[in-house]
Amino acid sequence: MARTAGSDGEKTDAALRDAALSLIARYGYEAVSMRRLAEEVGVQAAALYRYYATKEDLLYSLLTEHMQKLVAAWEAERPRNAEPPEQLAAFVEHHIGFHVARRHSTHVSNMELRSLAPEKLTQILKMRNAYEKELRQILRTGADAGLFIVEDAGLTAMAIIQMLTGVIVWFRPDERLSVEEVTSNYLNMTMRLVGAERGSEAAALRRAG
Amino acid sequence: MARTAGSDGEKTDAALRDAALSLIARYGYEAVSMRRLAEEVGVQAAALYRYYATKEDLLYSLLTEHMQKLVAAWEAERPRNAEPPEQLAAFVEHHIGFHVARRHSTHVSNMELRSLAPEKLTQILKMRNAYEKELRQILRTGADAGLFIVEDAGLTAMAIIQMLTGVIVWFRPDERLSVEEVTSNYLNMTMRLVGAERGSEAAALRRAG
Repeated sequence: MARTAGSDGEKTDAALRDAALSLIARYGYEAVSMRRLAEEVGVQAAALYRYYATKEDLLYSLLTEHMQKLVAAWEAERPRNAEPPEQLAAFVEHHIGFHVARRHSTHVSNMELRSLAPEKLTQILKMRNAYEKELRQILRTGADAGLFIVEDAGLTAMAIIQMLTGVIVWFRPDERLSVEEVTSNYLNMTMRLVGAERGSEAAALRRAG
Repeated sequence: MARTAGSDGEKTDAALRDAALSLIARYGYEAVSMRRLAEEVGVQAAALYRYYATKEDLLYSLLTEHMQKLVAAWEAERPRNAEPPEQLAAFVEHHIGFHVARRHSTHVSNMELRSLAPEKLTQILKMRNAYEKELRQILRTGADAGLFIVEDAGLTAMAIIQMLTGVIVWFRPDERLSVEEVTSNYLNMTMRLVGAERGSEAAALRRAG
């Protein structure tokens, strides 16, 4: 995508992307026109096309950035040379924390794959698959070491990811539980789901480390 | 909602509801007009208003029917006088089976709560809460009997429901696994998640019974 250089252009682009995530999460991609987006950001519709040639380019850019940031966050947070339970604990904490902080972006990424043309969809699905493979690898390594019970790494990875991402549907930070309490609870459930005995201990080790 | 009596009216209504679920699942509620729906079903737009006074009435009717059928299916399938592990196994089988058979309806029910006015939203959320309470009750009874490990019945119910409903996102009946294989796998994961030792046995008992 082309972006106008310089500070004002970057600010407009950031405002445009924020507005797009918010409006698409609320109304759906199909219902949000470039004109409506321009009104929301306070610029002429023609100006938007300096940033994105088409509305689908904008959507693709938003979904790509979501996946790139997700992968980068995991790369930064993943423990090195750690046993599978500690790696799985880190994955749970990373995955919940990342998505809870980006509710609109997560919602759009989960809902609007339907709105991408096939070749762009393929690119996003490749990125998703690479990310999910990280979890599958942890599960397989843990199962091979006799630490986890995993009948099917693909299904188990999908079950865990959907359970964890689902937190954004109901979680609100100012309600009954803090994100730390929710994460701790989901960590225990995840550890039991994969048959790990020592979920809490792995997490405690990680927090102490 | 008002429905035109007689066979033709009922057929039109059924076609209209099917088309609405399919189009809304594909494009989102906001993007699907009554005119577009009428074109899809092959009637005049004015005719649709004999069935539903507004588009939101149609959406509300679809979401209400989804929840009513979900609750009715569980009422029909739930085992009576059964131990919590057997009840939980029945819930897993019911929940996956129901949603896999109704992908469009499930997708619309999960996505388009955002499109309901507050009082209609409250009605749907009440029905959802009553359904989820069934699972919470199974979890609490199992925990009280020392059969399950459940730190927080609310969180555990949400985690299980989102994990199970998530099957519709990736499951296709003609691919690697049958719905029975997927269900059996998810049953094992659910049983471990709640700390039940005998998930497979409970399911086997149920199938034999």
